[in-house]
Amino acid sequence: MASSQTQPAVVLLSGGLDSATTLAFARSRGFVCHALSFDYGQRHKFELAAARRVATALGAIEHRIVRIDLSAGGGFGHSALTDEISVPKDRPLEDQPSQEGNPKSEIRNPKIKIPVTYVPARNTIFLSIALGYAEVLGAFDIFLGVNAVDYSGYPDCRPEFVEAFERLANLATAAAVEGKGRFAVHAPLIGMTKGQIIRAGLEMGVDYSLTHSCYDPSSDGRACGHCDACRLRRAGFAEAGAADPTRYVEA
Amino acid sequence: MASSQTQPAVVLLSGGLDSATTLAFARSRGFVCHALSFDYGQRHKFELAAARRVATALGAIEHRIVRIDLSAGGGFGHSALTDEISVPKDRPLEDQPSQEGNPKSEIRNPKIKIPVTYVPARNTIFLSIALGYAEVLGAFDIFLGVNAVDYSGYPDCRPEFVEAFERLANLATAAAVEGKGRFAVHAPLIGMTKGQIIRAGLEMGVDYSLTHSCYDPSSDGRACGHCDACRLRRAGFAEAGAADPTRYVEA
Repeated sequence: MASSQTQPAVVLLSGGLDSATTLAFARSRGFVCHALSFDYGQRHKFELAAARRVATALGAIEHRIVRIDLSAGGGFGHSALTDEISVPKDRPLEDQPSQEGNPKSEIRNPKIKIPVTYVPARNTIFLSIALGYAEVLGAFDIFLGVNAVDYSGYPDCRPEFVEAFERLANLATAAAVEGKGRFAVHAPLIGMTKGQIIRAGLEMGVDYSLTHSCYDPSSDGRACGHCDACRLRRAGFAEAGAADPTRYVEA
Repeated sequence: MASSQTQPAVVLLSGGLDSATTLAFARSRGFVCHALSFDYGQRHKFELAAARRVATALGAIEHRIVRIDLSAGGGFGHSALTDEISVPKDRPLEDQPSQEGNPKSEIRNPKIKIPVTYVPARNTIFLSIALGYAEVLGAFDIFLGVNAVDYSGYPDCRPEFVEAFERLANLATAAAVEGKGRFAVHAPLIGMTKGQIIRAGLEMGVDYSLTHSCYDPSSDGRACGHCDACRLRRAGFAEAGAADPTRYVEA
């Protein structure tokens, strides 16, 4: 990974724990960070407010929110995060698929279970727009907060997806084809557990009280404590041996 | 290429000559076609009206226009198609790069000249959203109207780009990873000259008077006749030995 005090990077920032830590990683490596969030009709808009807070707190030089209106003609998000499908609660975390022992799983793996919170092609769309943004900025580094625990069955959080996008980026763009540089998609958390991510973030000064993870928050933004995101987050703080600053609906 | 009387496909439809012909190809192969256009702040909005006309005339089962607001915070289109950069006029077509003799050009080719009408990562963004749409529809076929002449220096119109996106699609999506099917990105025009495209389209009943190619139309939608798109289109009708139905500013 190139390190620089002046090089720009685009950091995908959802406002959650992982992307906040990813921004801290990019900053700690000296990149001038342009944070990028998306308003794509997600139900948990508290994410976007959290992204604003996190971008400011962690010293992003700018923060843009790109609105993608996929709803023309009826919407095609088709996910518990955008539609009126119930967010799963209190399902055992060990039921979720893991990359363990299968770090390079090829396509058509019948054992992969895709959660209802999967949004079709979401990370592909986000990375594509990040790529266009990076090219305009003259940046060749894109940071993405995917990791093995958050993987949870999402095909677009796997290392082979990240590598395939990086390859595409270097074929797709004028900047790469003209030889001005080579795009790198950094996923610094990809091999870390939630507890390791939180410990690393705390060492870098991340204030996790600013972040939002819950898929099904109350109207005042408190976390439900029972969706996959809340349960992974809670377990992460326990693993890290750190106090969980999250405001839950019930204590 | 799979052929089916009932299989759905997503067809990227700009409203130009090539994408109209591509829709006709997809229809002729029996696909139920869902046409997809983008409102991304392009200056030539006559494209979108043309796309509507073409989708109806060629029997698309639906036509969606997805708005992408890339302008949050100042815009990052950075192209003569979205910004106030002059569209080049009357430049010799033979000055434009061609894939001839270089069908598999690798990245970092210093001879590639990128025109100012290049929009960073445009086809990557369009295909990504088409992929999400296809997955929701249960479609595995995406049609894209890129070709060797329209290539004109655009890195994201090359065969290796199309292949890299197809590979990505099959790693990125639940539908592919669960083994429900394999995504194919079809670029039926990729090896054809403009004249061949027009001849094939006329045989399939495409009414090219409905299409719009010009990058710099008059306020009433007539073509300038001098931008790259106009000149390629004009030369194509001449090559095809067909009457050019385009309404030009000057005859």
